[in-house]
Amino acid sequence: MPSQAANLIWVNGAPADAVSALERGLHYGDGLFETMACTGGEVRLLARHLARLARGCGRLAIAAPDPQALARELSVLAAGQGRCILKLILTRGPALARGYGYGAGQVPTRVVLRYPWEGPAADPAAGVRVRIARLRLAENPATAGIKHLNRLEQVLARAEWDDPQIAEALLFSRGGALISGTMSNVFLVRGMTVQTPRLDLCGVEGIMREVVMEVARDCGLALEERVLVQGDVDAAEEMFLTNSLTGIRRVGVIEARTLTGAAVGRRLQAALARAGAA
Amino acid sequence: MPSQAANLIWVNGAPADAVSALERGLHYGDGLFETMACTGGEVRLLARHLARLARGCGRLAIAAPDPQALARELSVLAAGQGRCILKLILTRGPALARGYGYGAGQVPTRVVLRYPWEGPAADPAAGVRVRIARLRLAENPATAGIKHLNRLEQVLARAEWDDPQIAEALLFSRGGALISGTMSNVFLVRGMTVQTPRLDLCGVEGIMREVVMEVARDCGLALEERVLVQGDVDAAEEMFLTNSLTGIRRVGVIEARTLTGAAVGRRLQAALARAGAA
Repeated sequence: MPSQAANLIWVNGAPADAVSALERGLHYGDGLFETMACTGGEVRLLARHLARLARGCGRLAIAAPDPQALARELSVLAAGQGRCILKLILTRGPALARGYGYGAGQVPTRVVLRYPWEGPAADPAAGVRVRIARLRLAENPATAGIKHLNRLEQVLARAEWDDPQIAEALLFSRGGALISGTMSNVFLVRGMTVQTPRLDLCGVEGIMREVVMEVARDCGLALEERVLVQGDVDAAEEMFLTNSLTGIRRVGVIEARTLTGAAVGRRLQAALARAGAA
Repeated sequence: MPSQAANLIWVNGAPADAVSALERGLHYGDGLFETMACTGGEVRLLARHLARLARGCGRLAIAAPDPQALARELSVLAAGQGRCILKLILTRGPALARGYGYGAGQVPTRVVLRYPWEGPAADPAAGVRVRIARLRLAENPATAGIKHLNRLEQVLARAEWDDPQIAEALLFSRGGALISGTMSNVFLVRGMTVQTPRLDLCGVEGIMREVVMEVARDCGLALEERVLVQGDVDAAEEMFLTNSLTGIRRVGVIEARTLTGAAVGRRLQAALARAGAA
């Protein structure tokens, strides 16, 4: 999927192309984001995105925006677009004073960026090529799970390769656990068991991950959310990546190993399509 | 020291109050910062700040600004001010496309904010009160040491208390090592030995820390930069915090324990003053 420049930006509900230089989002990464797929003028899985944003606000003690007002704003931006991507950034707002501390007067900043969403160039069934990142993710339960703006690890891991044939890198934690891709969650399949990493020490609890976990259970598959290590990756017969834009993407090659398994991912993909989720 | 609002902001060399909403500094915390003390129109320890910035740029593969041009710009902002604080933020620049990846065309953004610098209200010899943060710092050699913009951990640790009598919190790593304060480095003293934590897994290599380490060696003190744990904190006869604005600040109380030792910190403070560093 080619990445393209934003074609529309709103800041706090109005067209704008800039934010305050005092933004705590800039100074500290003190905020959250959501990346949403839009089709036919509708934001896919909107309620789930808003719920995750609210959970993140709770964790960071940022005043959560009114979900109905935010939903209306996103709908206005998605309207009339065939397919597009909306990225929402919500920060604690401009700093009222110097330093990490903040008082009760913080007013959050809301940035929504709209990007074109090109269709996938390749056959989704073909399977993508994936590498293992050298960078290991740091572990911190205080920031794990939420989609916050401290993403330097992802930037550094993504900078490890520039081969356009490689779609993603798998990241392990400092402790040796499989966590995710740089911009996706990961699932392993063994027999009729679907496995995905626990994200209580690092990683982002993806919306598509959540949907796929539910759909897998609905399909009668055994679903394990647990600590997974390199040995589990090696033992997987099938592997797929998820995010809100790509849905389920089968991994065809991981480093030097070819994975031929595809049946479970295909079954889940069909179930997602029936549910209107991807 | 009261924190006050910025009274002057320059973006890329000219007065401005905003940055692009596409800033990778905002989206990912993809950048670095420096906080500099200015007195008599001069930026203190400027060469060291510029050198650390260049090291950070090297680590993040951000094009480093020309140090002479940057020094001139900072000097213009400091000129005519009795005392002030300059905060420099250097990011990888506005994103040219969506996603963590970046190409060769990135042009870094330079934000310089000038803040008033009020004198310390309290007697510096009195000693400050310090707590131990509940939050533990994540460990990652890929981001350790540099003053990058991913500071959510510091924001969360600073939000743990609002008692104005408490000046700082000490942070330990996930692995149980003493690392730093939220906005300072830490030194322990036992006899004629001065100890400061290794920062190869987390923490920021402070400019004042660097100067104090040199001055301690020059004073004939034994200087240990190593892994320190809670037991070392408990065994310390004297403890002090450092940063570029406060120089050396003696810790008078840590949690329930009173620390009376002050001699080594006082000696180093005098040496810093002679060197014109604080």
